[in-house]
Amino acid sequence: MRLALWQGAGVPGDLDGTVAEVARIADMAANNGADLLVFPEGYLTGYYIPDLTKGGLPDVEAAFVKVANIAKCTGLVIAMGSHIDEQDGLRNAAVVFDASGLELGRYHKRALFGDWERKTFRAGRNPLRFCCAGLNVGVAICYDVEFPELIRCEAQAGVDLVIVPTALMAPHERIARLMVPTRAMENQIALGYANRVGSEGPFDFVGLSSICGPQGEPLATAHTEPELLVAEIEPASIQRERAAGSYLGTLAQLR
Amino acid sequence: MRLALWQGAGVPGDLDGTVAEVARIADMAANNGADLLVFPEGYLTGYYIPDLTKGGLPDVEAAFVKVANIAKCTGLVIAMGSHIDEQDGLRNAAVVFDASGLELGRYHKRALFGDWERKTFRAGRNPLRFCCAGLNVGVAICYDVEFPELIRCEAQAGVDLVIVPTALMAPHERIARLMVPTRAMENQIALGYANRVGSEGPFDFVGLSSICGPQGEPLATAHTEPELLVAEIEPASIQRERAAGSYLGTLAQLR
Repeated sequence: MRLALWQGAGVPGDLDGTVAEVARIADMAANNGADLLVFPEGYLTGYYIPDLTKGGLPDVEAAFVKVANIAKCTGLVIAMGSHIDEQDGLRNAAVVFDASGLELGRYHKRALFGDWERKTFRAGRNPLRFCCAGLNVGVAICYDVEFPELIRCEAQAGVDLVIVPTALMAPHERIARLMVPTRAMENQIALGYANRVGSEGPFDFVGLSSICGPQGEPLATAHTEPELLVAEIEPASIQRERAAGSYLGTLAQLR
Repeated sequence: MRLALWQGAGVPGDLDGTVAEVARIADMAANNGADLLVFPEGYLTGYYIPDLTKGGLPDVEAAFVKVANIAKCTGLVIAMGSHIDEQDGLRNAAVVFDASGLELGRYHKRALFGDWERKTFRAGRNPLRFCCAGLNVGVAICYDVEFPELIRCEAQAGVDLVIVPTALMAPHERIARLMVPTRAMENQIALGYANRVGSEGPFDFVGLSSICGPQGEPLATAHTEPELLVAEIEPASIQRERAAGSYLGTLAQLR
Protein backbone atom coordinates (compact mmCIF):
# COMPACT_ATOMS: atom_id res chain seq x y z
CA MET A 1 0.00 0.00 0.00
CA ARG A 2 1.36 3.35 -1.03
CA LEU A 3 0.46 6.19 1.33
CA ALA A 4 0.67 9.87 0.42
CA LEU A 5 0.30 12.78 2.87
CA TRP A 6 0.01 16.41 1.89
CA GLN A 7 1.71 18.83 4.27
CA GLY A 8 0.25 22.25 3.55
CA ALA A 9 -2.49 24.77 4.27
CA GLY A 10 -4.77 25.09 1.22
CA VAL A 11 -6.36 28.54 0.75
CA PRO A 12 -8.16 29.09 4.07
CA GLY A 13 -11.57 30.70 3.55
CA ASP A 14 -11.59 30.01 -0.24
CA LEU A 15 -13.28 26.64 -0.87
CA ASP A 16 -12.90 26.82 -4.67
CA GLY A 17 -9.23 27.75 -4.36
CA THR A 18 -8.64 24.89 -1.93
CA VAL A 19 -10.52 22.37 -4.11
CA ALA A 20 -8.28 23.40 -7.03
CA GLU A 21 -5.28 22.66 -4.80
CA VAL A 22 -6.80 19.28 -3.88
CA ALA A 23 -7.07 18.42 -7.58
CA ARG A 24 -3.46 19.46 -8.23
CA ILE A 25 -2.11 17.49 -5.25
CA ALA A 26 -4.23 14.41 -6.05
CA ASP A 27 -2.72 14.38 -9.55
CA MET A 28 0.76 14.48 -8.02
CA ALA A 29 -0.10 11.66 -5.60
CA ALA A 30 -1.62 9.52 -8.35
CA ASN A 31 1.48 10.08 -10.50
CA ASN A 32 3.51 8.82 -7.52
CA GLY A 33 1.45 5.62 -7.45
CA ALA A 34 -0.38 6.39 -4.21
CA ASP A 35 -3.41 4.39 -3.06
CA LEU A 36 -4.44 6.74 -0.23
CA LEU A 37 -3.99 10.52 0.07
CA VAL A 38 -4.38 12.24 3.46
CA PHE A 39 -4.86 16.00 3.99
CA PRO A 40 -4.27 17.91 7.25
CA GLU A 41 -6.83 18.89 9.89
CA GLY A 42 -9.23 21.59 8.63
CA TYR A 43 -7.60 21.56 5.20
CA LEU A 44 -10.78 22.18 3.17
CA THR A 45 -12.15 24.99 5.33
CA GLY A 46 -9.06 26.32 7.09
CA TYR A 47 -8.34 25.31 10.68
CA TYR A 48 -8.91 28.51 12.68
CA ILE A 49 -12.25 30.22 12.01
CA PRO A 50 -12.83 32.36 15.12
CA ASP A 51 -16.52 33.18 14.39
CA LEU A 52 -17.44 29.71 13.16
CA THR A 53 -20.28 29.25 15.66
CA LYS A 54 -21.99 32.31 14.14
CA GLY A 55 -21.23 31.90 10.43
CA GLY A 56 -21.54 28.15 9.96
CA LEU A 57 -20.18 26.39 6.87
CA PRO A 58 -22.95 26.46 4.24
CA ASP A 59 -20.91 25.51 1.14
CA VAL A 60 -18.80 22.67 2.51
CA GLU A 61 -21.14 19.85 1.39
CA ALA A 62 -20.92 21.07 -2.22
CA ALA A 63 -17.13 21.14 -1.93
CA PHE A 64 -17.17 17.51 -0.69
CA VAL A 65 -18.96 16.51 -3.91
CA LYS A 66 -16.02 17.98 -5.83
CA VAL A 67 -13.49 16.16 -3.61
CA ALA A 68 -15.41 12.89 -4.17
CA ASN A 69 -15.13 13.50 -7.90
CA ILE A 70 -11.37 14.10 -7.61
CA ALA A 71 -11.08 10.75 -5.77
CA LYS A 72 -12.98 9.06 -8.60
CA CYS A 73 -11.01 10.75 -11.39
CA THR A 74 -7.62 9.97 -9.84
CA GLY A 75 -8.51 6.52 -8.48
CA LEU A 76 -7.29 7.56 -5.01
CA VAL A 77 -8.84 7.01 -1.61
CA ILE A 78 -8.87 10.53 -0.10
CA ALA A 79 -9.10 11.45 3.61
CA MET A 80 -9.97 15.15 3.85
CA GLY A 81 -9.65 17.21 7.00
CA SER A 82 -12.53 19.67 7.23
CA HIS A 83 -14.79 21.39 9.68
CA ILE A 84 -18.42 20.46 9.05
CA ASP A 85 -21.71 21.98 10.15
CA GLU A 86 -23.53 18.72 10.90
CA GLN A 87 -27.19 18.62 11.95
CA ASP A 88 -26.16 17.84 15.52
CA GLY A 89 -23.41 20.47 15.77
CA LEU A 90 -20.13 21.70 14.36
CA ARG A 91 -17.53 18.96 14.00
CA ASN A 92 -13.80 18.90 13.43
CA ALA A 93 -13.75 16.00 11.01
CA ALA A 94 -11.96 13.82 8.48
CA VAL A 95 -14.14 12.57 5.63
CA VAL A 96 -13.01 9.54 3.63
CA PHE A 97 -13.90 8.96 -0.04
CA ASP A 98 -12.99 5.72 -1.79
CA ALA A 99 -11.55 5.47 -5.28
CA SER A 100 -15.04 5.36 -6.82
CA GLY A 101 -15.99 8.62 -5.09
CA LEU A 102 -18.15 6.92 -2.46
CA GLU A 103 -18.10 8.58 0.96
CA LEU A 104 -16.97 5.86 3.41
CA GLY A 105 -17.61 7.86 6.57
CA ARG A 106 -16.93 10.92 8.67
CA TYR A 107 -14.57 10.75 11.61
CA HIS A 108 -15.30 13.39 14.27
CA LYS A 109 -12.32 14.46 16.42
CA ARG A 110 -12.71 13.02 19.90
CA ALA A 111 -10.10 14.89 21.97
CA LEU A 112 -10.77 18.58 21.36
CA PHE A 113 -7.74 20.80 22.03
CA GLY A 114 -7.68 24.22 23.63
CA ASP A 115 -10.34 26.81 24.37
CA TRP A 116 -11.30 27.65 20.78
CA GLU A 117 -11.93 24.04 19.74
CA ARG A 118 -13.82 23.23 22.92
CA LYS A 119 -16.19 26.16 22.58
CA THR A 120 -16.66 25.60 18.82
CA PHE A 121 -16.99 21.86 18.20
CA ARG A 122 -18.94 18.94 19.55
CA ALA A 123 -16.60 16.04 20.36
CA GLY A 124 -16.87 12.77 18.47
CA ARG A 125 -17.28 9.40 20.12
CA ASN A 126 -16.64 6.76 17.48
CA PRO A 127 -13.80 5.34 15.41
CA LEU A 128 -13.84 5.21 11.59
CA ARG A 129 -12.10 2.31 9.88
CA PHE A 130 -11.79 1.20 6.28
CA CYS A 131 -9.77 -1.17 4.13
CA CYS A 132 -7.41 0.21 1.49
CA ALA A 133 -5.04 -1.79 -0.72
CA GLY A 134 -5.06 -4.69 1.72
CA LEU A 135 -4.47 -2.69 4.92
CA ASN A 136 -6.95 -1.90 7.69
CA VAL A 137 -6.86 1.86 8.24
CA GLY A 138 -8.01 3.85 11.29
CA VAL A 139 -8.34 7.61 11.78
CA ALA A 140 -7.36 10.06 14.51
CA ILE A 141 -7.17 13.85 14.39
CA CYS A 142 -4.30 15.79 15.99
CA TYR A 143 -4.76 15.79 19.81
CA ASP A 144 -6.44 12.35 19.57
CA VAL A 145 -3.03 10.80 18.82
CA GLU A 146 -1.62 12.16 22.09
CA PHE A 147 -3.78 9.68 24.02
CA PRO A 148 -2.24 6.21 23.89
CA GLU A 149 -5.63 4.69 24.75
CA LEU A 150 -7.21 5.83 21.47
CA ILE A 151 -4.48 4.42 19.24
CA ARG A 152 -4.23 1.20 21.28
CA CYS A 153 -7.92 0.73 20.60
CA GLU A 154 -7.23 0.93 16.85
CA ALA A 155 -4.43 -1.64 17.04
CA GLN A 156 -6.58 -3.98 19.12
CA ALA A 157 -9.32 -3.69 16.48
CA GLY A 158 -6.85 -4.97 13.86
CA VAL A 159 -5.85 -1.66 12.28
CA ASP A 160 -2.47 -1.71 10.46
CA LEU A 161 -2.20 2.02 9.72
CA VAL A 162 -3.57 5.05 11.56
CA ILE A 163 -3.85 8.26 9.53
CA VAL A 164 -3.73 11.51 11.48
CA PRO A 165 -4.77 14.82 9.89
CA THR A 166 -3.31 17.38 12.27
CA ALA A 167 -2.80 21.07 13.02
CA LEU A 168 0.20 20.89 15.35
CA MET A 169 1.35 24.31 16.40
CA ALA A 170 4.40 25.80 18.08
CA PRO A 171 5.77 25.15 20.67
CA HIS A 172 4.59 21.55 20.56
CA GLU A 173 7.14 20.16 18.07
CA ARG A 174 8.00 17.39 20.55
CA ILE A 175 4.67 15.72 19.74
CA ALA A 176 5.76 15.23 16.12
CA ARG A 177 9.33 14.29 16.98
CA LEU A 178 8.80 11.89 19.92
CA MET A 179 5.18 10.96 20.50
CA VAL A 180 4.12 10.21 16.92
CA PRO A 181 6.83 7.58 16.30
CA THR A 182 6.19 6.15 19.77
CA ARG A 183 2.50 5.56 18.93
CA ALA A 184 3.57 3.52 15.89
CA MET A 185 6.26 1.65 17.85
CA GLU A 186 4.20 0.74 20.93
CA ASN A 187 1.41 -0.64 18.74
CA GLN A 188 3.63 -2.07 15.99
CA ILE A 189 1.55 -0.34 13.33
CA ALA A 190 2.24 2.26 10.64
CA LEU A 191 1.19 5.86 11.19
CA GLY A 192 0.81 8.84 8.87
CA TYR A 193 0.79 12.30 10.48
CA ALA A 194 -0.19 15.10 8.04
CA ASN A 195 0.30 18.61 9.39
CA ARG A 196 -0.42 22.15 8.27
CA VAL A 197 2.26 24.80 7.69
CA GLY A 198 2.13 28.58 7.95
CA SER A 199 0.01 30.64 10.36
CA GLU A 200 -3.64 31.33 11.11
CA GLY A 201 -4.67 33.81 13.81
CA PRO A 202 -2.51 33.13 16.88
CA PHE A 203 -1.33 29.71 15.64
CA ASP A 204 1.96 28.88 13.93
CA PHE A 205 1.84 25.38 12.48
CA VAL A 206 5.10 23.48 12.56
CA GLY A 207 5.00 21.00 9.69
CA LEU A 208 7.15 17.95 10.65
CA SER A 209 4.68 15.56 9.02
CA SER A 210 5.84 11.97 8.87
CA ILE A 211 5.07 8.43 7.81
CA CYS A 212 6.35 5.94 10.41
CA GLY A 213 6.76 2.18 10.15
CA PRO A 214 5.98 -0.33 12.94
CA GLN A 215 9.27 0.27 14.79
CA GLY A 216 8.52 4.00 14.77
CA GLU A 217 11.13 4.33 12.04
CA PRO A 218 10.69 7.27 9.64
CA LEU A 219 9.65 6.12 6.16
CA ALA A 220 9.19 9.74 5.02
CA THR A 221 9.53 13.03 6.89
CA ALA A 222 8.88 16.68 6.08
CA HIS A 223 10.36 19.90 7.44
CA THR A 224 8.32 23.12 7.44
CA GLU A 225 7.51 23.70 3.75
CA PRO A 226 4.48 22.43 1.77
CA GLU A 227 5.37 18.94 0.61
CA LEU A 228 3.92 15.65 -0.61
CA LEU A 229 5.23 12.68 1.40
CA VAL A 230 4.92 9.22 -0.13
CA ALA A 231 5.93 5.87 1.33
CA GLU A 232 5.18 2.21 0.82
CA ILE A 233 3.59 0.53 3.86
CA GLU A 234 4.41 -3.17 3.77
CA PRO A 235 2.02 -5.44 5.68
CA ALA A 236 4.91 -7.92 6.02
CA SER A 237 6.91 -5.37 8.05
CA ILE A 238 4.11 -5.28 10.63
CA GLN A 239 3.87 -9.07 10.78
CA ARG A 240 7.67 -9.39 11.11
CA GLU A 241 7.79 -6.83 13.90
CA ARG A 242 5.04 -8.56 15.88
CA ALA A 243 6.49 -12.03 15.30
CA ALA A 244 9.71 -10.85 17.00
CA GLY A 245 7.69 -9.91 20.12
CA SER A 246 4.11 -8.66 20.21
CA TYR A 247 3.17 -5.82 22.55
CA LEU A 248 -0.51 -6.70 22.14
CA GLY A 249 0.24 -10.33 23.00
CA THR A 250 2.19 -9.43 26.16
CA LEU A 251 -0.43 -6.85 27.16
CA ALA A 252 -3.13 -9.52 27.09
CA GLN A 253 -1.09 -11.52 29.64
CA LEU A 254 -0.64 -8.52 31.94
CA ARG A 255 -4.33 -8.40 32.74
CA MET B 1 13.56 16.55 45.06
CA ARG B 2 16.98 15.63 43.78
CA LEU B 3 17.10 12.36 41.81
CA ALA B 4 20.28 10.42 41.08
CA LEU B 5 20.54 7.45 38.69
CA TRP B 6 23.54 5.23 38.33
CA GLN B 7 24.23 4.01 34.80
CA GLY B 8 26.53 1.02 35.10
CA ALA B 9 26.88 -2.72 35.55
CA GLY B 10 28.31 -3.46 39.02
CA VAL B 11 30.43 -6.63 39.22
CA PRO B 12 28.05 -9.34 37.96
CA GLY B 13 28.37 -12.54 40.02
CA ASP B 14 30.35 -10.82 42.81
CA LEU B 15 27.92 -9.58 45.47
CA ASP B 16 30.63 -8.16 47.75
CA GLY B 17 32.29 -6.36 44.83
CA THR B 18 28.95 -4.92 43.76
CA VAL B 19 28.02 -3.82 47.30
CA ALA B 20 31.37 -1.99 47.48
CA GLU B 21 30.41 -0.21 44.24
CA VAL B 22 27.01 0.65 45.73
CA ALA B 23 28.74 2.26 48.71
CA ARG B 24 31.08 4.26 46.45
CA ILE B 25 28.23 5.46 44.21
CA ALA B 26 25.97 6.29 47.16
CA ASP B 27 28.72 8.52 48.57
CA MET B 28 28.93 10.31 45.20
CA ALA B 29 25.16 10.74 45.07
CA ALA B 30 25.00 12.02 48.65
CA ASN B 31 27.79 14.49 47.89
CA ASN B 32 25.67 15.69 44.96
CA GLY B 33 22.76 16.36 47.33
CA ALA B 34 20.57 13.51 46.05
CA ASP B 35 17.45 12.38 47.92
CA LEU B 36 16.86 9.20 45.89
CA LEU B 37 19.39 6.94 44.12
CA VAL B 38 18.23 4.41 41.51
CA PHE B 39 20.29 1.47 40.21
CA PRO B 40 19.67 -0.48 36.97
CA GLU B 41 17.78 -3.75 36.53
CA GLY B 42 19.62 -6.70 38.04
CA TYR B 43 22.39 -4.44 39.34
CA LEU B 44 23.06 -6.31 42.58
CA THR B 45 23.12 -9.81 41.07
CA GLY B 46 23.91 -9.17 37.40
CA TYR B 47 21.13 -9.23 34.83
CA TYR B 48 21.83 -12.35 32.78
CA ILE B 49 22.31 -15.52 34.84
CA PRO B 50 21.56 -18.35 32.40
CA ASP B 51 21.36 -21.16 35.02
CA LEU B 52 19.49 -19.11 37.61
CA THR B 53 16.61 -21.57 37.93
CA LYS B 54 19.14 -24.22 39.06
CA GLY B 55 21.51 -22.19 41.23
CA GLY B 56 19.15 -19.79 43.00
CA LEU B 57 20.40 -16.70 44.80
CA PRO B 58 21.24 -17.74 48.38
CA ASP B 59 23.30 -14.69 49.45
CA VAL B 60 21.17 -11.86 48.10
CA GLU B 61 19.22 -11.24 51.31
CA ALA B 62 22.47 -10.69 53.22
CA ALA B 63 23.58 -8.23 50.53
CA PHE B 64 20.28 -6.33 50.92
CA VAL B 65 21.10 -5.83 54.61
CA LYS B 66 24.33 -4.13 53.52
CA VAL B 67 22.48 -1.97 50.97
CA ALA B 68 19.99 -0.97 53.68
CA ASN B 69 22.94 0.06 55.84
CA ILE B 70 24.37 2.16 52.98
CA ALA B 71 21.00 3.91 52.65
CA LYS B 72 21.06 4.66 56.38
CA CYS B 73 24.68 5.84 56.43
CA THR B 74 24.27 8.15 53.41
CA GLY B 75 20.73 9.33 54.23
CA LEU B 76 19.58 8.31 50.74
CA VAL B 77 16.48 6.48 49.61
CA ILE B 78 17.88 3.67 47.42
CA ALA B 79 16.03 1.68 44.75
CA MET B 80 18.08 -1.40 43.93
CA GLY B 81 17.55 -3.59 40.87
CA SER B 82 18.14 -7.23 41.78
CA HIS B 83 16.96 -10.71 41.02
CA ILE B 84 15.52 -12.37 44.14
CA ASP B 85 14.76 -15.96 45.03
CA GLU B 86 11.44 -15.35 46.80
CA GLN B 87 9.47 -18.12 48.50
CA ASP B 88 6.95 -18.11 45.65
CA GLY B 89 9.50 -18.05 42.83
CA LEU B 90 12.36 -16.13 41.23
CA ARG B 91 11.59 -12.45 40.69
CA ASN B 92 13.15 -9.68 38.65
CA ALA B 93 12.76 -6.93 41.23
CA ALA B 94 13.52 -3.46 42.51
CA VAL B 95 13.79 -3.17 46.29
CA VAL B 96 13.40 0.24 47.92
CA PHE B 97 15.11 1.25 51.19
CA ASP B 98 14.34 4.54 52.87
CA ALA B 99 16.93 6.87 54.39
CA SER B 100 16.68 5.09 57.75
CA GLY B 101 17.47 1.73 56.10
CA LEU B 102 13.89 0.48 56.29
CA GLU B 103 12.81 -1.70 53.36
CA LEU B 104 9.71 0.00 51.89
CA GLY B 105 8.82 -2.77 49.48
CA ARG B 106 9.76 -5.01 46.59
CA TYR B 107 8.51 -4.29 43.10
CA HIS B 108 8.35 -7.38 40.89
CA LYS B 109 8.66 -6.78 37.12
CA ARG B 110 5.28 -7.27 35.49
CA ALA B 111 6.07 -7.41 31.75
CA LEU B 112 8.77 -10.06 31.37
CA PHE B 113 10.85 -9.68 28.22
CA GLY B 114 12.17 -12.41 25.95
CA ASP B 115 12.58 -16.15 26.31
CA TRP B 116 15.15 -16.14 29.09
CA GLU B 117 13.16 -13.87 31.43
CA ARG B 118 9.91 -15.70 30.76
CA LYS B 119 11.35 -19.10 31.58
CA THR B 120 13.26 -17.80 34.62
CA PHE B 121 11.00 -15.38 36.50
CA ARG B 122 7.50 -15.26 37.83
CA ALA B 123 5.75 -12.05 36.71
CA GLY B 124 4.67 -9.47 39.25
CA ARG B 125 1.16 -8.09 39.52
CA ASN B 126 1.30 -5.06 41.78
CA PRO B 127 2.60 -1.51 41.82
CA LEU B 128 4.99 -0.17 44.48
CA ARG B 129 4.72 3.47 45.47
CA PHE B 130 6.40 5.63 48.09
CA CYS B 131 6.84 9.24 49.03
CA CYS B 132 10.29 10.85 48.82
CA ALA B 133 11.16 14.50 49.45
CA GLY B 134 7.57 15.56 48.78
CA LEU B 135 7.06 13.58 45.55
CA ASN B 136 4.98 10.45 45.01
CA VAL B 137 7.21 7.89 43.32
CA GLY B 138 6.19 4.79 41.33
CA VAL B 139 8.33 1.96 39.98
CA ALA B 140 8.56 0.11 36.65
CA ILE B 141 11.29 -2.19 35.36
CA CYS B 142 12.53 -2.03 31.75
CA TYR B 143 9.89 -3.63 29.44
CA ASP B 144 7.12 -2.45 31.83
CA VAL B 145 7.68 1.14 30.64
CA GLU B 146 6.97 0.12 27.04
CA PHE B 147 3.30 -0.39 27.96
CA PRO B 148 1.52 2.96 28.19
CA GLU B 149 -1.19 1.36 30.33
CA LEU B 150 1.20 0.64 33.21
CA ILE B 151 2.59 4.16 33.41
CA ARG B 152 -0.84 5.74 32.94
CA CYS B 153 -1.96 3.76 35.96
CA GLU B 154 0.85 5.35 38.00
CA ALA B 155 -0.10 8.88 36.91
CA GLN B 156 -3.77 8.24 37.66
CA ALA B 157 -2.76 7.08 41.15
CA GLY B 158 -1.11 10.45 41.76
CA VAL B 159 2.51 9.52 41.09
CA ASP B 160 4.78 12.46 40.14
CA LEU B 161 7.90 10.46 39.22
CA VAL B 162 8.31 6.94 37.85
CA ILE B 163 11.74 5.35 38.36
CA VAL B 164 12.72 2.65 35.87
CA PRO B 165 15.66 0.32 36.53
CA THR B 166 16.35 -1.14 33.10
CA ALA B 167 18.57 -3.46 31.03
CA LEU B 168 17.92 -2.09 27.54
CA MET B 169 19.95 -3.88 24.92
CA ALA B 170 20.88 -3.34 21.30
CA PRO B 171 19.20 -2.85 18.85
CA HIS B 172 16.41 -1.26 20.91
CA GLU B 173 17.94 2.21 21.39
CA ARG B 174 14.73 3.78 20.06
CA ILE B 175 13.01 2.87 23.35
CA ALA B 176 15.39 5.15 25.27
CA ARG B 177 15.38 7.91 22.66
CA LEU B 178 11.66 8.12 21.80
CA MET B 179 9.43 6.07 24.08
CA VAL B 180 10.90 7.02 27.47
CA PRO B 181 10.43 10.80 27.00
CA THR B 182 6.97 10.13 25.52
CA ARG B 183 5.89 8.29 28.69
CA ALA B 184 6.83 11.36 30.75
CA MET B 185 5.17 13.75 28.29
CA GLU B 186 1.86 11.91 27.84
CA ASN B 187 1.42 11.64 31.62
CA GLN B 188 2.97 14.99 32.52
CA ILE B 189 5.19 13.35 35.11
CA ALA B 190 8.94 13.03 35.62
CA LEU B 191 10.69 9.79 34.72
CA GLY B 192 14.11 8.35 35.57
CA TYR B 193 15.43 5.56 33.33
CA ALA B 194 18.58 3.88 34.70
CA ASN B 195 20.26 1.47 32.29
CA ARG B 196 23.18 -0.94 32.35
CA VAL B 197 26.24 -0.67 30.12
CA GLY B 198 28.61 -3.32 28.76
CA SER B 199 27.75 -6.90 27.83
CA GLU B 200 26.52 -10.08 29.47
CA GLY B 201 26.10 -13.31 27.48
CA PRO B 202 24.38 -12.42 24.20
CA PHE B 203 23.24 -8.98 25.42
CA ASP B 204 24.88 -5.62 24.71
CA PHE B 205 23.39 -2.93 26.94
CA VAL B 206 23.13 0.51 25.37
CA GLY B 207 23.27 3.03 28.23
CA LEU B 208 21.28 6.14 27.18
CA SER B 209 19.89 6.57 30.70
CA SER B 210 17.91 9.75 31.24
CA ILE B 211 15.93 11.87 33.65
CA CYS B 212 12.96 13.50 31.87
CA GLY B 213 10.71 16.32 33.02
CA PRO B 214 6.93 16.49 32.48
CA GLN B 215 7.21 17.73 28.88
CA GLY B 216 9.52 14.78 28.15
CA GLU B 217 12.40 17.25 28.19
CA PRO B 218 15.80 15.84 29.12
CA LEU B 219 16.94 17.05 32.56
CA ALA B 220 20.00 14.78 32.42
CA THR B 221 21.15 12.23 29.82
CA ALA B 222 23.96 9.68 29.60
CA HIS B 223 25.76 8.12 26.64
CA THR B 224 27.28 4.64 26.89
CA GLU B 225 29.80 4.96 29.75
CA PRO B 226 29.23 4.39 33.48
CA GLU B 227 27.90 7.65 34.85
CA LEU B 228 25.96 9.22 37.73
CA LEU B 229 23.06 11.35 36.49
CA VAL B 230 21.61 13.92 38.88
CA ALA B 231 18.70 16.30 38.33
CA GLU B 232 16.29 18.34 40.40
CA ILE B 233 12.63 17.33 39.92
CA GLU B 234 10.44 20.33 40.68
CA PRO B 235 6.85 19.56 41.69
CA ALA B 236 5.91 23.03 40.40
CA SER B 237 6.98 22.04 36.86
CA ILE B 238 4.44 19.21 36.91
CA GLN B 239 1.67 21.46 38.23
CA ARG B 240 2.50 24.15 35.62
CA GLU B 241 2.47 21.64 32.78
CA ARG B 242 -0.90 20.22 33.82
CA ALA B 243 -2.41 23.66 34.42
CA ALA B 244 -1.64 24.51 30.77
CA GLY B 245 -3.70 21.49 29.66
CA SER B 246 -4.10 18.21 31.51
CA TYR B 247 -4.00 14.94 29.60
CA LEU B 248 -5.56 13.15 32.56
CA GLY B 249 -8.34 15.73 32.70
CA THR B 250 -9.15 15.41 28.98
CA LEU B 251 -8.91 11.62 29.15
CA ALA B 252 -11.58 11.54 31.85
CA GLN B 253 -13.92 13.38 29.46
CA LEU B 254 -13.23 10.95 26.58
CA ARG B 255 -14.86 8.09 28.43
